[in-house]
Amino acid sequence: MSQGPNPHPDSAAMKATLLAYVERFNAGDAQGVAALYADDATVEDPVGAQPIAGKPAILAFYQHATALGARLEVVAPPRGSHGNAAALTFAVHARLEGRPARIDVTDIMSFGDDGRIRSMRAHWGPDDVHFV
Amino acid sequence: MSQGPNPHPDSAAMKATLLAYVERFNAGDAQGVAALYADDATVEDPVGAQPIAGKPAILAFYQHATALGARLEVVAPPRGSHGNAAALTFAVHARLEGRPARIDVTDIMSFGDDGRIRSMRAHWGPDDVHFV
Repeated sequence: MSQGPNPHPDSAAMKATLLAYVERFNAGDAQGVAALYADDATVEDPVGAQPIAGKPAILAFYQHATALGARLEVVAPPRGSHGNAAALTFAVHARLEGRPARIDVTDIMSFGDDGRIRSMRAHWGPDDVHFV
Repeated sequence: MSQGPNPHPDSAAMKATLLAYVERFNAGDAQGVAALYADDATVEDPVGAQPIAGKPAILAFYQHATALGARLEVVAPPRGSHGNAAALTFAVHARLEGRPARIDVTDIMSFGDDGRIRSMRAHWGPDDVHFV
């Protein structure tokens, strides 16, 4: 597929970016996470909410999430594709309403030709929030 | 979200359909799997391939897959959303080129108001195929 008119990063490169995302997030490096995104990227978290768009909004989103002390635990190897999307299945460990909680999530990221994330969609429902 | 202009099945209902999908697939019930789809649904497996569309093509797809003896192993609880999509992360156990293999996959399914699957996108890349 990489020889078509719309080249895109290969499957392994997309997965490496997903793992860098987790590493930077868990290091509290919101700037580093935001740097993985294209300038005009969108984040829909959770799927069904109004997406946010653009680097400043995305940086603020991750600054907020990391300031809360959330931590991501990868629970299955990331999945690539034969196209421009890859999947990351993980748990978010965080405090919600003062109590320790786990949110089960699968992110789908789409990528631009330059390897940066163009869109993130976080699949988690009300029933994926577990107080532990 | 269920009170908006575009109602959709709730998160738990979507996840139940994903688990029924696995159960029927592993029972070799291609008709039962196809019955979970809307008549005009699409299947893009893997992401990046030409999607197939419509119930007859989808039934043929699952008849082929189940006839090959493929078996699905769920590796993380399915994730719902606040919208009309849910995620299933699993491994396909099958024989490829005469050898036992595992393919790591994350499916994203979108759902219609009637609870049937409108689209399936299977995220797996060339590097997600493991000979075991």
